[in-house]
Amino acid sequence: MNFEFSQKVSGLQASAIREILKYSADPSVISFAAGSPAPEALPAKQLEELSKELLAEEPDIVFQYGVTEGYQPLREEVKKLLTKRGCFNSEYDDVIITSGAQQANELSAKVLCDESDTILAESPSFIGSLNAFKSYHVNLDGVTLEDDGINIEELEIKLKKGGVKLLYLIPNFQNPTGKTMSWEKRQKAFELCKKYGAVILEDNPYGDLRFEGEDIKSIKTLDTEGSVIYSGTFSKILSPGIRVGYVCAHKDIIQKIVICKQVADVHTAMWSQMLVYRFLKRYDLDEHIESLHSVYKQKTQLMLSQIDEKLSSKIIHTSPQGGLFIWCTLPDEVTTAQMVEFCTAAVRDYKTALVPGTAFTISDSDETRSFRLNFSAPKKDEIIEGCSRVGRLSKEMFGE
Amino acid sequence: MNFEFSQKVSGLQASAIREILKYSADPSVISFAAGSPAPEALPAKQLEELSKELLAEEPDIVFQYGVTEGYQPLREEVKKLLTKRGCFNSEYDDVIITSGAQQANELSAKVLCDESDTILAESPSFIGSLNAFKSYHVNLDGVTLEDDGINIEELEIKLKKGGVKLLYLIPNFQNPTGKTMSWEKRQKAFELCKKYGAVILEDNPYGDLRFEGEDIKSIKTLDTEGSVIYSGTFSKILSPGIRVGYVCAHKDIIQKIVICKQVADVHTAMWSQMLVYRFLKRYDLDEHIESLHSVYKQKTQLMLSQIDEKLSSKIIHTSPQGGLFIWCTLPDEVTTAQMVEFCTAAVRDYKTALVPGTAFTISDSDETRSFRLNFSAPKKDEIIEGCSRVGRLSKEMFGE
Repeated sequence: MNFEFSQKVSGLQASAIREILKYSADPSVISFAAGSPAPEALPAKQLEELSKELLAEEPDIVFQYGVTEGYQPLREEVKKLLTKRGCFNSEYDDVIITSGAQQANELSAKVLCDESDTILAESPSFIGSLNAFKSYHVNLDGVTLEDDGINIEELEIKLKKGGVKLLYLIPNFQNPTGKTMSWEKRQKAFELCKKYGAVILEDNPYGDLRFEGEDIKSIKTLDTEGSVIYSGTFSKILSPGIRVGYVCAHKDIIQKIVICKQVADVHTAMWSQMLVYRFLKRYDLDEHIESLHSVYKQKTQLMLSQIDEKLSSKIIHTSPQGGLFIWCTLPDEVTTAQMVEFCTAAVRDYKTALVPGTAFTISDSDETRSFRLNFSAPKKDEIIEGCSRVGRLSKEMFGE
Repeated sequence: MNFEFSQKVSGLQASAIREILKYSADPSVISFAAGSPAPEALPAKQLEELSKELLAEEPDIVFQYGVTEGYQPLREEVKKLLTKRGCFNSEYDDVIITSGAQQANELSAKVLCDESDTILAESPSFIGSLNAFKSYHVNLDGVTLEDDGINIEELEIKLKKGGVKLLYLIPNFQNPTGKTMSWEKRQKAFELCKKYGAVILEDNPYGDLRFEGEDIKSIKTLDTEGSVIYSGTFSKILSPGIRVGYVCAHKDIIQKIVICKQVADVHTAMWSQMLVYRFLKRYDLDEHIESLHSVYKQKTQLMLSQIDEKLSSKIIHTSPQGGLFIWCTLPDEVTTAQMVEFCTAAVRDYKTALVPGTAFTISDSDETRSFRLNFSAPKKDEIIEGCSRVGRLSKEMFGE
């Protein structure tokens, strides 16, 4: 049978990453292509212990239906956490627990955007969110991402055009670039969106993973009337496999997100929510987060030094102070096709998986000569060996 | 700030059930309003034990990201289960694990339907699915549900009109009516949909809960080219709180659902999936299902006898051979408003929660004088006491 798919979905292609991942199934491949936190930094032992207690003490709750808004004690803990960080306005904000921040971002777009609306995002940006927006067939447009955040002049030009409903930003250690938006640009973007009536969707999965430099306050801290939606997650600091994220936004927005989540998956798995709640009650979250930093710092520094030592000197890269990713850019004369060929050769012939920048472009036709490296998932010896392999290939293709 | 929500979402209201649920928070209220399985029939002890083993043996997998398609060993077990039931065609079908059957139904609609397409559903039908369809702003139309399934002549008239992309059916112990579609009607509906190019979405959450009579084969068993999507769940037989469902459909459809699930929640919680897998490997599912039947049979029969004994004789009701629900209908002269008043008085004054039929109508303006009773969630003494309360109210309002 030939199926006629909906317009919004027929345009969605399985991502370019998938091709790379096919080769990655080979166990001899070292993967720098993941988006997962460092496995050794997840508190697996603590979670295992908490799970035992939870199942023994509250089997009736853990196995039955919960409410769509989320497990109430966890919602309260998240509100406390966000209040401490200046991201929860008790006057009008509310919180809903979601099945990962992916759901938070997808539902935010669903409740606010019709097909005629525009969503602006950093160019390049996180493929999962870009595809979520595309799956609602909205107009998606990019704003050039500079080292300290999006180009503010370009933002204003695009806002002026009208029709912009949402500005999607990952201000801390952005995916895929690892770049962090300056406080000045956060303020300016906030003011401009307010002026032109656009809502900011601030996605902050990596903010806790800062191992160097000073924290920069969230855009949400500037909010005085509900024009910023803040999404967060426990994926990077506790576990991605449990799928627990949250949204903090004006209660009118949360109310609509609740209705959409009800039809999406009824509620987030009870065990996952109750486990996170027990972790937050039992342990000091700040201490736990602090304990992750040395792991991330060591791995980042190792990969950065390996890149500098082994890759063609013509390749430039970001030097993030946190997060999961390093963004490498090939020399000026390299075409998009050559960059993709470089990434393909890396995994096919040199058994090292990178993610080509084409995975993160706003439009399929955008040119890019960059690729993404992940330093959190591989082991240290894999970082060393993988960089040697990519180094040899890069020198062959682009010279010393 | 005044938010302008998307058209598809602004039309979605928090369901009528919510009003009733507000009163239900009162601990003296007996709830016949739930949609949850009998708590005493969930294998909580076995799941607790399996969880311990799982967390001790595979912490690396349970806490990390999984693939969108689902935990591979579970997918294989589900394929085996469906093959045994004649619902998996190895030539073209594939299976994806979803976060409950709710997600299965929502994503099926998302991949197939544009705003100009029509979805037909039994009238009345399950509010969660109806709202999922509405959240994509499709044309939703109902086909009258008779005691043995939808009216086939009406179905053909509506299919003939054109534009029908999907026919949504719950053939076994339908929600909210408890009605089961006959084998003859299943065959006729299948043939008609094939003739007019509509896909059938067969939602089967309650099929395993038949405690009386003969199983009727799924519509999916008739499928020879992928024109039936089958969705199932472990919510009613293992646990709803873990949120594990699945879709079996033509691989072209599954491929699109995978892309949409990737942007919806990346994947279903690993613990939930791995727990179900271990249950299926450790225990005989058929034996487990068999063991549930006596619980459901006793509760159904108790509630049916209580209704006959205590409610106004002018109220008629279905007598389901399985599932979770009984559908009661007030006398001919009763208006929709009076039915809602009856349900409101029941919870407000008689501390017993029922769900008014208005929650299940295709359109907000549809008339109905029915209400839904759930017999699986309340305890036996609650069934007896709740029926006494509703009985008194019904006799006051409608006579002996």
